[in-house]
Amino acid sequence: VSLVKPVEYAEANPAVKAVYDDIMATRKVAAVNNFWKVLAHDPDTLKRTWEEVKAVMQPAALDALTKEMIYVAVSATNGCEYCTYSHTASARKQGMSDAMLAEVLAVTALANKTNRLANGYRVPVDDAFKPDF
Amino acid sequence: VSLVKPVEYAEANPAVKAVYDDIMATRKVAAVNNFWKVLAHDPDTLKRTWEEVKAVMQPAALDALTKEMIYVAVSATNGCEYCTYSHTASARKQGMSDAMLAEVLAVTALANKTNRLANGYRVPVDDAFKPDF
Amino acid sequence: VSLVKPVEYAEANPAVKAVYDDIMATRKVAAVNNFWKVLAHDPDTLKRTWEEVKAVMQPAALDALTKEMIYVAVSATNGCEYCTYSHTASARKQGMSDAMLAEVLAVTALANKTNRLANGYRVPVDDAFKPDF
Amino acid sequence: VSLVKPVEYAEANPAVKAVYDDIMATRKVAAVNNFWKVLAHDPDTLKRTWEEVKAVMQPAALDALTKEMIYVAVSATNGCEYCTYSHTASARKQGMSDAMLAEVLAVTALANKTNRLANGYRVPVDDAFKPDF
Amino acid sequence: VSLVKPVEYAEANPAVKAVYDDIMATRKVAAVNNFWKVLAHDPDTLKRTWEEVKAVMQPAALDALTKEMIYVAVSATNGCEYCTYSHTASARKQGMSDAMLAEVLAVTALANKTNRLANGYRVPVDDAFKPDF
Amino acid sequence: VSLVKPVEYAEANPAVKAVYDDIMATRKVAAVNNFWKVLAHDPDTLKRTWEEVKAVMQPAALDALTKEMIYVAVSATNGCEYCTYSHTASARKQGMSDAMLAEVLAVTALANKTNRLANGYRVPVDDAFKPDF
Repeated sequence: VSLVKPVEYAEANPAVKAVYDDIMATRKVAAVNNFWKVLAHDPDTLKRTWEEVKAVMQPAALDALTKEMIYVAVSATNGCEYCTYSHTASARKQGMSDAMLAEVLAVTALANKTNRLANGYRVPVDDAFKPDF
Repeated sequence: VSLVKPVEYAEANPAVKAVYDDIMATRKVAAVNNFWKVLAHDPDTLKRTWEEVKAVMQPAALDALTKEMIYVAVSATNGCEYCTYSHTASARKQGMSDAMLAEVLAVTALANKTNRLANGYRVPVDDAFKPDF
Repeated sequence: VSLVKPVEYAEANPAVKAVYDDIMATRKVAAVNNFWKVLAHDPDTLKRTWEEVKAVMQPAALDALTKEMIYVAVSATNGCEYCTYSHTASARKQGMSDAMLAEVLAVTALANKTNRLANGYRVPVDDAFKPDF
Repeated sequence: VSLVKPVEYAEANPAVKAVYDDIMATRKVAAVNNFWKVLAHDPDTLKRTWEEVKAVMQPAALDALTKEMIYVAVSATNGCEYCTYSHTASARKQGMSDAMLAEVLAVTALANKTNRLANGYRVPVDDAFKPDF
Repeated sequence: VSLVKPVEYAEANPAVKAVYDDIMATRKVAAVNNFWKVLAHDPDTLKRTWEEVKAVMQPAALDALTKEMIYVAVSATNGCEYCTYSHTASARKQGMSDAMLAEVLAVTALANKTNRLANGYRVPVDDAFKPDF
Repeated sequence: VSLVKPVEYAEANPAVKAVYDDIMATRKVAAVNNFWKVLAHDPDTLKRTWEEVKAVMQPAALDALTKEMIYVAVSATNGCEYCTYSHTASARKQGMSDAMLAEVLAVTALANKTNRLANGYRVPVDDAFKPDF
């Protein structure tokens, strides 16, 4: 159970309803998921976070699928159950296959492993890796 | 300074030299970077890690650039200085522009933010996100 | 289910009972929560941890509410389910409103975001931020 | 050295200059710190992050000092060197004494300790801690 | 529920069956646990991970019990529920008593605490701790 | 540079001096390391942390070397530079060889990898791993 009561559409104030409407229109879905209903207790964070998600996750230098897979990699690293389920679902909508998910998690696991070898041995950064400006 | 002395090529045993040779041949570089020289104190981990890196990072369902960008996202999340420098350099070799790096880090930062909102409010996972098998 | 069986008051040894009694008296509650019942398998850690909680969380240079909110921020960052529920409850007892919880989590989320931007870009520390002693 | 070259005021484009000007005016300082100069390579993230910092960190249900101390607690937990230095400096400007810093870090350390005891023993959440709605 | 359907023995392909057989033979158990059944969707990662587990966890410079206890310490630190349950079970098979588990978690908790004190205060590394080569 | 000025023995107050004396006597060393000198700004945390280190790290159900290696594993996982250097030094004093360090870090790296595979795939805990009380 969440720490604050999820705000359903029918009981939302106009500012919250406007964000819900935009989420549903942008994503072409009939309802918003729990994350937004819980954030709605704090309408400023709801609005700011949705606008950031909309701006950051839209295709630009990277396509939408690549962005969702990076989201999954970070969420798996942090052990965030909710974000792992929700962004895996989003990535699948963008075309992620089981084989692609397997590679996302294989890279994520490998990076978490070598991060600890590098940090554990305190490997000094090679000069060649440092930008020269 | 690293916790164990990096093993230079000239002083490496044949098993280590074989791995160094394969790294240099595969990557078409003239020397191996510090990570491998430090791991060389433990030839089994050196060999196993290099073979995993080679297998996991090669293009398959995902291309090599996408994999390197996921590596950067995980390394930034974990705060691993060495891995951030080294895998940013690898990603640039694969074609990552400054604009793409900016988007990798913007998504990484956003995911780290929403991971804590989801975990902090203990948002329950929507049934719609769960696979039905 | 916990990894070791929680120790109920009736079956506790005198050393554990003394800690339970002090927790109930200090907090003016009729029973101890699961965290202490599980720790009771290791009476030394139980006693040491309770005494540290009692000493560190009492009002001094910071008031008790501020301390509980910092506890919530750390627990949300680490994704500790138990600590998020228990310290949110404690913070509410000390007067944290829904609006205050919203701000605790908004700051926590923002800090987790900028931590990764700073670490991901490897931003060098400004001299101005370093103490000069 | 940062992964991208810091953007100095003189060489900044108008969008970046506008953010720099707002930072300097809001904080009454004569220059912006490295974090913003590095973010400036990605003007959208620069603008969005600064506006979020300005909105989230202003006094509301919590005062500005409490918010800065939460920022320090999260940054210490994540091991972000840059953020620890910069937000400790900000917190001191808001009035944090050495004694208050000591308590912020004592609570942060204690929370990191008990988070692992709770997660390590898999302590089940008490029903009493769950909201009943 | 897992993100991909666990692969039961009867429906596994020969490559997966071979790994399952080796796990069961090596561990002298009648079935493999869920971790391997889920990984089986990605036979390469299944095989590579099992071979790494088998090689790394066998007694060598450290005995098998010490290795399992280190596994528990890392899993508790990362808040990995699955790994905490499974590696606690493995450690108990190797002879870990309740008293030993209590000490593993007491050290883990203490290290997580002092890690944040050291990182939070930015304590400089003593020269005496650095190897001189 | 640390956030607060390290307290040298000559300038320490009697409470701090008593802790320093006990550290030097217990460890048979001629000076305390920077961690304690920085903590000394907060004599209560200094005293409490030292007493916890002394009690938790002494041989009991686990020997002192095993405990130090767990400390190294946690510190490498969290990326704490100071703790990695200082506890590797302590572990070496207790008899950790280069081969043992290599195995500590190989297990740590493997655990960090499988933690993310388990969390990323959301593997459900097998009933067999749960205690039945």
